[in-house]
Amino acid sequence: MDEFGIIARYFAPLAGEGAFGLADDTALVPPRPGHDLLVTTDAVAEGTDFFAFDPASAIARKALRVNLSDLAAKGAEPAYYLLNLALPPSVTAAWLEDFAGGLAADQREFGVALLGGDTSRTEGPLSIAITAFGFVPEGRMVRRDGARAGDDIYVTGSIGDSGGGLAIFRREKHSLSEQDRDALTLRYRVPQPPVGFAPRLRAIAHAAIDISDGLVADLGHVAAASGVKLVIEGEALPLSAPLKALWGEKTILRAATAGDDYQIAFTAPPGLAGPFTRIGHVTAGEGVEFRLDGAAIDVPRPGYRHF
Amino acid sequence: MDEFGIIARYFAPLAGEGAFGLADDTALVPPRPGHDLLVTTDAVAEGTDFFAFDPASAIARKALRVNLSDLAAKGAEPAYYLLNLALPPSVTAAWLEDFAGGLAADQREFGVALLGGDTSRTEGPLSIAITAFGFVPEGRMVRRDGARAGDDIYVTGSIGDSGGGLAIFRREKHSLSEQDRDALTLRYRVPQPPVGFAPRLRAIAHAAIDISDGLVADLGHVAAASGVKLVIEGEALPLSAPLKALWGEKTILRAATAGDDYQIAFTAPPGLAGPFTRIGHVTAGEGVEFRLDGAAIDVPRPGYRHF
Repeated sequence: MDEFGIIARYFAPLAGEGAFGLADDTALVPPRPGHDLLVTTDAVAEGTDFFAFDPASAIARKALRVNLSDLAAKGAEPAYYLLNLALPPSVTAAWLEDFAGGLAADQREFGVALLGGDTSRTEGPLSIAITAFGFVPEGRMVRRDGARAGDDIYVTGSIGDSGGGLAIFRREKHSLSEQDRDALTLRYRVPQPPVGFAPRLRAIAHAAIDISDGLVADLGHVAAASGVKLVIEGEALPLSAPLKALWGEKTILRAATAGDDYQIAFTAPPGLAGPFTRIGHVTAGEGVEFRLDGAAIDVPRPGYRHF
Repeated sequence: MDEFGIIARYFAPLAGEGAFGLADDTALVPPRPGHDLLVTTDAVAEGTDFFAFDPASAIARKALRVNLSDLAAKGAEPAYYLLNLALPPSVTAAWLEDFAGGLAADQREFGVALLGGDTSRTEGPLSIAITAFGFVPEGRMVRRDGARAGDDIYVTGSIGDSGGGLAIFRREKHSLSEQDRDALTLRYRVPQPPVGFAPRLRAIAHAAIDISDGLVADLGHVAAASGVKLVIEGEALPLSAPLKALWGEKTILRAATAGDDYQIAFTAPPGLAGPFTRIGHVTAGEGVEFRLDGAAIDVPRPGYRHF
């Protein structure tokens, strides 16, 4: 099947308003009055973000969700996406069908539609880049640079589970139950970005970021952009029981630097309660300080490095 | 240098309004009142669209221009772009500087700015995907599906030069002068999409497409989308002297199927004059008929196939 056959068969059924059924090269982004349009793009790569043996539907969902995570961390509701796909010769029709099925399921779950893209052949590894569009009420994007001394730091969900899943795929030794193991590996394969939290986030947050490279590394970006110091209180990190069973006493530090969480870390006034956990506070200064039981700890490798 | 160092050093200086200096993951697309926002995305790949030995600045400009070409063919003025870059370990600081320099030059030439992107490491070939944004006055996008029986077919620029340049890079034998050779290879390396023609195009065209896969193949998309038959009169094709020197009597058919032209083919009322050439007409029916001296010719391979 050639490029146009693949588009017509697998991707045209996913097309939304403005995509012209993918029959044009160019799409029209339908505007939303009173809203700002946000855009973000992230690629996932075989061997880093997924494995060749992962189900195609999981790969598709991860590629989409890492982008929905960026939008959610800005307080935006997702709306559309573009798909750049470079396919190695080994990809089969069954793989493509499963891949498109994963996208279709997530389109229903998150209320997004495909707007366009590009499909080509590669001799290299499978490569998927997605560009996602979302809307926030005008002027309400939550940026990285709004953290203030006196804020507390909060995080949604639990931290480190995806890193634990990756460690298991990389054959790190463990004695987990099958259920605990699957809980962690599933978090690596199919992230659960808190998309529905976006409206609440923009009501309370001064600054926010999604955790992709690692909590410490990503909060470092917030500290740098905001010109403040972020103090993480390690013992406050929300950690799942399966992860603690996997990593024992090393759980806190490994979870704080593992990355691939796709949860939202944000700063906001102290004393808030909701579907999130307080993990630290903001003071004058610069950088990130990681404390365990009150003592500053050196974190040699604060997150995943792309190079 | 890591991802963030590369972004700060080479790409942040290219950032436009809404990009927040590339210090956030997500950009805000500044709206243009009274206009529709169009978006298109195309990847270029080593070995297909460029060679590893090409100057990095030329690779950058080609990656950007294949997208500006899509926007121009819809009657849009380009405004912003996103850059997805997967870099093999062989890429050096000098290469990145030259690459960013090519983007900077084209930003000045076409009035566009960088809005965001994603940079990662790959073990595969260098891969570049660009997503470009442009504006058309509301409701004025030129689509593929507007061709009508009675229209003439027109094309901007000359056809086949880039294909001739690629043939030379692929060591096809020739006896061209150095000047003629360079004229063709430069067209392959750095396309010249008629971006400034967009306002005129939307004033006259019923349907349009940019020629990327090959004139016959791309007009096939217009015929299919519009539900009409497109008749190309081969002897009317605008061909450059260097190309005729390269391909002799085979020039017409090879030029019509070579691709990588990044000129605009469009249908519009007969009798128009401007910076374009009449190359055929539209009738009732379906598909593309290629005529030479009045006789229909079978075109076995109407354009580049991605698979």
